[in-house]
Amino acid sequence: MLDYDFQGKIRIAVIGGSDASNEALKEAEAVGQLIAKNNCILVTGGLGGVMEAASRGAKEAGGVVMGILPGISRLEKNPYVDIAIPTGLGWIRNVQVVLNADVLIAIDGAYGTLSEISYALLYGKPVFGLKTWVLSKAEEKSGKGVISCLSPQEAVEKALKAVAISDG
Amino acid sequence: MLDYDFQGKIRIAVIGGSDASNEALKEAEAVGQLIAKNNCILVTGGLGGVMEAASRGAKEAGGVVMGILPGISRLEKNPYVDIAIPTGLGWIRNVQVVLNADVLIAIDGAYGTLSEISYALLYGKPVFGLKTWVLSKAEEKSGKGVISCLSPQEAVEKALKAVAISDG
Amino acid sequence: MLDYDFQGKIRIAVIGGSDASNEALKEAEAVGQLIAKNNCILVTGGLGGVMEAASRGAKEAGGVVMGILPGISRLEKNPYVDIAIPTGLGWIRNVQVVLNADVLIAIDGAYGTLSEISYALLYGKPVFGLKTWVLSKAEEKSGKGVISCLSPQEAVEKALKAVAISDG
Amino acid sequence: MLDYDFQGKIRIAVIGGSDASNEALKEAEAVGQLIAKNNCILVTGGLGGVMEAASRGAKEAGGVVMGILPGISRLEKNPYVDIAIPTGLGWIRNVQVVLNADVLIAIDGAYGTLSEISYALLYGKPVFGLKTWVLSKAEEKSGKGVISCLSPQEAVEKALKAVAISDG
Repeated sequence: MLDYDFQGKIRIAVIGGSDASNEALKEAEAVGQLIAKNNCILVTGGLGGVMEAASRGAKEAGGVVMGILPGISRLEKNPYVDIAIPTGLGWIRNVQVVLNADVLIAIDGAYGTLSEISYALLYGKPVFGLKTWVLSKAEEKSGKGVISCLSPQEAVEKALKAVAISDG
Repeated sequence: MLDYDFQGKIRIAVIGGSDASNEALKEAEAVGQLIAKNNCILVTGGLGGVMEAASRGAKEAGGVVMGILPGISRLEKNPYVDIAIPTGLGWIRNVQVVLNADVLIAIDGAYGTLSEISYALLYGKPVFGLKTWVLSKAEEKSGKGVISCLSPQEAVEKALKAVAISDG
Repeated sequence: MLDYDFQGKIRIAVIGGSDASNEALKEAEAVGQLIAKNNCILVTGGLGGVMEAASRGAKEAGGVVMGILPGISRLEKNPYVDIAIPTGLGWIRNVQVVLNADVLIAIDGAYGTLSEISYALLYGKPVFGLKTWVLSKAEEKSGKGVISCLSPQEAVEKALKAVAISDG
Repeated sequence: MLDYDFQGKIRIAVIGGSDASNEALKEAEAVGQLIAKNNCILVTGGLGGVMEAASRGAKEAGGVVMGILPGISRLEKNPYVDIAIPTGLGWIRNVQVVLNADVLIAIDGAYGTLSEISYALLYGKPVFGLKTWVLSKAEEKSGKGVISCLSPQEAVEKALKAVAISDG
């Protein structure tokens, strides 16, 4: 029997590349831990690199991890995903990572991460960044863009506040 | 903290129309209860009718319900969905209902249900049916088609056996 | 310069398996020829078997062929496709084959074809069949199902009439 | 009968917002004209603003326009689309705009345009920009990013050269 209130939990996506520096992986793990400690659900794309490091962090801290997978099998994922969601969409699943999050934290990352940032901003979801994309035209055109943070703590705290504000 | 082994659980999808007869709804509820009692996760399309009745049944028996939703919001769902997965795909999400199941039980239903049956069979997943589509060319062309059952008990028992066989 | 009125043309999809009998391939080619002779655009899934045979037929008769492709490259297609549309959706692209057609002709085929038939009927598009799926519950539940035809001529004639009726 | 070699033509997507300044619309129209004059096919998302202005330009110059539409009907499009492709994907169709192009020209635009830029760069397709997004981390991380141009002429010329290089 499930004793866990899924619907009441905030979902935070951690987005970032499958190929990442050690520093980015360390930050991703710390972000994952903080997400779990703050009783939120972690959402990722379910594969390696930043996605896996964040998921490992969340599991170390007793959290819950959803993985939105590109393939058609729920087995093609990193070992820390609890709830595997195969999509059959390949890279197009990036959009569904965004749809499954209330707020996002981007860590490092290349064009795949940028695609998730863009869709998040398109759907009006806040994005906090750790050494990731900075968007030059965001302010004048369409809102706030990626809000740069200096530490995992700052990113998770700001993400939690952003969701509280959009709820309240 | 989550004390539930998601990855080790069998996922059974219940597919059927949002517009269904009282008899179909009763059967769906009974199927949902049996899925939960057998410690499996229920997957549905997350909306009304057969999807909602099966989900209510699963929750009555203490089970876990995943809802693969057509819209972009995780709030557009019936009240019995634990894990809501917005897809942004409209009716195309039917394919993702199938991808998220190990085995399917079809109850009543019209063309939407038939689309899920077809994709299930295309991906090689067994489908058991309660007063639903019967496929005329299935045997000679592509496998076993929909296996008709006479009761919720029979459908759930056969679904469990089918997964055990394909694993074993 | 393009001297061809795309928007005014009826689009007929031919659906059927990539693995088909010689008889089915012959019928598909004849259907493709008739579609072109009747000044309609042929839509297919862009790969082999029935899709390729129909496309060859359409090109023999000077027609236009759209291929809705599963992959991400417009080059992964049979040689008779004029307008290649990569979707990146794998088998999920079957739904987009349907969305791009005004009416469909199913020839032979297995579960992939059945998925296209179901989506066509779900979206209210008429489907005519040559030695393909017969749907047992269609009449009582959701409309007309697949209308069986005995020859390519009958299928194309009925498809044209069906579109005229739904327009008029 | 179609007397037009679709497969041999280069496809250039013009991406940009449905809500755009007069200056952006003028540039889009000029880009559309140049695409047609250079015997290329124009691909857009099929709706208003920059998409419509570019399409009008292409038609003024006798060109061919493909519209990759978000809805399920091929009629929901601007009047200059020749080949309408309904996708049923909503904003997720942005990815399919990219998949259908060999090279892209971004004009103005907000987060939707940025999503198309990101997917283009993810799939390795060159993007040329007119007063649009500038990407700060592109150079160091993942290639060339958006190549800023000063005029429609420069953008189309560079787009044509980029395709010639990647072919050659």
